[in-house]
Amino acid sequence: MPSPAGLMGQMMAMPLLISSLLKHAARHSGDTEIVSKRLEGDVHRSSWAATEFRARQLAQALARLGCQPGDRVGTLAWNGHRHLEIYYGVSGSGLVCHTINPRLFPEQIAWIAQDARDRVLCFDLNLLPLVEKLAPALTHTEHFVLMTDRAHMPAHSALPGLLFFEELLAAEDGAYVWPEFDENTASSICYTSGTTGHPKGAVYSHRSTVLHAFASALPDAMDCSSRDVVLPVVPMFHVNAWGLPYSCALVGCKLVLPGPFLDGASLYQLFESEGVTFSAGVPTVWLGLLQHVQSQGLKFSSFKRTVIGGSACPPALMKTLQQDFGIEVIHAWGMTELSPLGTLSKLTSRQLGLPAEAQQRLLEKQGRVIYGIDMAIADDVGQALPWDGQSAGNLLVRGSWVISGYFGQAASPLVSLDGEPGWFPTGDVATIDADGFMQITDRSKDVIKSGGEWISSIELENIAMAHPAVQEAAVIACPHPKWDERPLLLVVLKPGASVSREALLSFYAGQVVGWQVPDDVVFLSELPHTATGKLQKLKLREQFRSHRLPGA
Amino acid sequence: MPSPAGLMGQMMAMPLLISSLLKHAARHSGDTEIVSKRLEGDVHRSSWAATEFRARQLAQALARLGCQPGDRVGTLAWNGHRHLEIYYGVSGSGLVCHTINPRLFPEQIAWIAQDARDRVLCFDLNLLPLVEKLAPALTHTEHFVLMTDRAHMPAHSALPGLLFFEELLAAEDGAYVWPEFDENTASSICYTSGTTGHPKGAVYSHRSTVLHAFASALPDAMDCSSRDVVLPVVPMFHVNAWGLPYSCALVGCKLVLPGPFLDGASLYQLFESEGVTFSAGVPTVWLGLLQHVQSQGLKFSSFKRTVIGGSACPPALMKTLQQDFGIEVIHAWGMTELSPLGTLSKLTSRQLGLPAEAQQRLLEKQGRVIYGIDMAIADDVGQALPWDGQSAGNLLVRGSWVISGYFGQAASPLVSLDGEPGWFPTGDVATIDADGFMQITDRSKDVIKSGGEWISSIELENIAMAHPAVQEAAVIACPHPKWDERPLLLVVLKPGASVSREALLSFYAGQVVGWQVPDDVVFLSELPHTATGKLQKLKLREQFRSHRLPGA
Repeated sequence: MPSPAGLMGQMMAMPLLISSLLKHAARHSGDTEIVSKRLEGDVHRSSWAATEFRARQLAQALARLGCQPGDRVGTLAWNGHRHLEIYYGVSGSGLVCHTINPRLFPEQIAWIAQDARDRVLCFDLNLLPLVEKLAPALTHTEHFVLMTDRAHMPAHSALPGLLFFEELLAAEDGAYVWPEFDENTASSICYTSGTTGHPKGAVYSHRSTVLHAFASALPDAMDCSSRDVVLPVVPMFHVNAWGLPYSCALVGCKLVLPGPFLDGASLYQLFESEGVTFSAGVPTVWLGLLQHVQSQGLKFSSFKRTVIGGSACPPALMKTLQQDFGIEVIHAWGMTELSPLGTLSKLTSRQLGLPAEAQQRLLEKQGRVIYGIDMAIADDVGQALPWDGQSAGNLLVRGSWVISGYFGQAASPLVSLDGEPGWFPTGDVATIDADGFMQITDRSKDVIKSGGEWISSIELENIAMAHPAVQEAAVIACPHPKWDERPLLLVVLKPGASVSREALLSFYAGQVVGWQVPDDVVFLSELPHTATGKLQKLKLREQFRSHRLPGA
Repeated sequence: MPSPAGLMGQMMAMPLLISSLLKHAARHSGDTEIVSKRLEGDVHRSSWAATEFRARQLAQALARLGCQPGDRVGTLAWNGHRHLEIYYGVSGSGLVCHTINPRLFPEQIAWIAQDARDRVLCFDLNLLPLVEKLAPALTHTEHFVLMTDRAHMPAHSALPGLLFFEELLAAEDGAYVWPEFDENTASSICYTSGTTGHPKGAVYSHRSTVLHAFASALPDAMDCSSRDVVLPVVPMFHVNAWGLPYSCALVGCKLVLPGPFLDGASLYQLFESEGVTFSAGVPTVWLGLLQHVQSQGLKFSSFKRTVIGGSACPPALMKTLQQDFGIEVIHAWGMTELSPLGTLSKLTSRQLGLPAEAQQRLLEKQGRVIYGIDMAIADDVGQALPWDGQSAGNLLVRGSWVISGYFGQAASPLVSLDGEPGWFPTGDVATIDADGFMQITDRSKDVIKSGGEWISSIELENIAMAHPAVQEAAVIACPHPKWDERPLLLVVLKPGASVSREALLSFYAGQVVGWQVPDDVVFLSELPHTATGKLQKLKLREQFRSHRLPGA
């Protein structure tokens, strides 16, 4: 970084370290509760002070196991107090916390743990069978730590030398001083679960994590304060539960961790008994919770607002939460490579004067960036597109909590915008309006590029799915000799329903301009999905690469 | 900074620069208004986009005047758009913005400008006579810039080569790229106005300023969002208007700048016409504004909350704003050496369950620290005192926006706590309760140390001032052969009032424990004050050094 031969500030040099978040919470909100619904069957009550003490014990235990600065400690665990202690004990002591999604295919988990070279693997009680199966493939992993005490150990385990989290902690006195080091040191790793190729690791730093915690607590973001009771429904293995374990320490609020119990009844019970005011998660969780609440005629007594992200929030779900339950819904967008927060949809002072319908349309967009992130949309040669709410382009981002590369990969993923390097291509296609409100219209690889114009596959799918005979729809790009690509509609009909190709295509009339209507329809008995339920459009594109469009 | 031989994060390196705040506001809230009530007589309307453009023009103009990185640019100016443009144009281009309080004695202003070696001095229209008087003493100042256009120039000026802000800008095309440099580079200087000795300069960095902006916008601090309309009553020469010009850019909200027009009628008019939701200032401004509003039977239609600091907020003022006007009052504490925010009084989730009176008592304290700042109380040998709400000690702080030294001074002001160096002694005496709520009880130099116990001079003064015959009171330490120091009460009686020494001392019965009651009373016709109205207790202590206490 070139510095002017100027004057330096005379301010204290305090690195932005993850341990400083925990020290702050323990010192200034020490009694504030950490509540965990556990696999042992109880609701466990801890505090920020106790979390800090146990994180220090863990740091001692990991050092005793031989961990060196920079070593990776993997986790396969749900949202609970021990996972929180691992977050802080591992990162705080200069090790790297590597959270892994237990719901991936076992061979993916093994690949990820091997790629990260996890020296230690900590895992929750009900994941012991999974880990027993994985263990032979985990050649870098020297220690397996079951996140419970010996009393809860199942009768037999095929894992030799299995360690118990509570025994490791009990052997230490907690007389540990959090080390100071360069704030750009790696703190944690999350792997993206791409639909193609191997997963790739995003390596967060202490600095990026603390800055993200500052930004995500802001009123225009998650609006977290010491008056909140926060229940992260989003798992701690999904991009660090969107940073909530860090921002909750930063503001010193009560944290409620639901374990793996994410069904509507369990969640509702915890929301009510703990006075939860704020939660965050993907749309499907809210659908399940609402179904329970509505079918039982219940209402929420403390729940005030939620951030919904991960995938686009259906407008109907947003309206039900807002209008029937008085819950503020904040639509958000982010990704693993962004730690994850990029944009949130919150109205500005001026927009509060708009008619209700215009406000609602803005709230349904993915929203504006927070300070620390910048974004742009670009065409395929990297030229910036206007912010007119109409022009759709590749969404590029840069900022203090955006990755510059992937773990162990020499190639830079970054691209240029108008010749200026250093932008991360998100793989999303979006519009941005004059007020900076971004709306995702497609994934870059799914958009149909027809005669130089871009057609949103998602928009065409949504129209098809609104047809009464259609159960599921996919729109893919099909090669075309004149237009390069044209949209092809693939549909699965509802059981017993029928509709003609022509009737389906004429259903688009008046909903999109004529040149965006698909060129053809193929009826299928089912569409291919990934393990996590995502439509495998790549597979479909390969399957229909040679499909002959009418008139082509 | 020692780094573990570990793994480094793979995140984008984006320095925390003041220019990035303005670029963010211009890009994502470009149309949002900056409204200024000007000395030219108009209400001027600008925007974040226009501010950014004009700041770039200013950066070009200053370079053309010969300014080099690190050079200081002084300001003598009220809250207005040109002052805001100077904040960003100066700091953003690697120069150092040095705001000076125009209400200081001229010789103090000259001393400060010379100490900082200001190469350029920018000043508001009505301060031309002051600057004409100062100019001969400002031997380091090469350029004087009147913050207006030539049309508003008074007929004559004794200043040779006077420049005009608008002419400087008009000569530039704004085609300027904000430079990147080390985020620890100095961004601005504020001098403390101590009651003794020369003022001392706090040298803020870009990093400390941006981190302070993050923290001060948090829900537990000033709670600033894009839905706010912010009017900083606190002057931009008082510790950068408590950082609001930066945090408002960070959140991209509308900013209303009142110029020097801080009388109740002018402020009220601006609050209403611009829809101000949030303001911040010292208690006296609110007294003036309330007097106007109450005498005219008016009410506020948009004003929702205010941060009050600078000196302790009288509980009666707090209650009037809360109960009669529905305005949330956030009591805050800070100082120049803290950029300035240290603590704010906002209730936690648990405290919301306390009875109203207990809540009110907490809100009257100075409050809790924000993440980024830590605090402690210590006795005179630097040993930490307990957080019991009773033990009073020297308040020490450290953090990312606390100074480590003063401009041009080799000696470190920092002290140790329990043997650990690196704490800044605030000069305040305070208690901290178990929840981390801090309450200032005195200034360190004013507290009376009697037989190893500390007696708050402020508490004794407040009791005396509640006596119907007393107009003003000061309590100072008087040397005592047995107890080291004992309190001496100095009073000025109201015109026509009379009260005996014994009656005044017996007035303390039941209000403080017996050994805290002053040993003697001296009646005076007036008490000495500084230019800014502060009681000069040092002068009083010198005057009464030989006072013979009864029984001593």
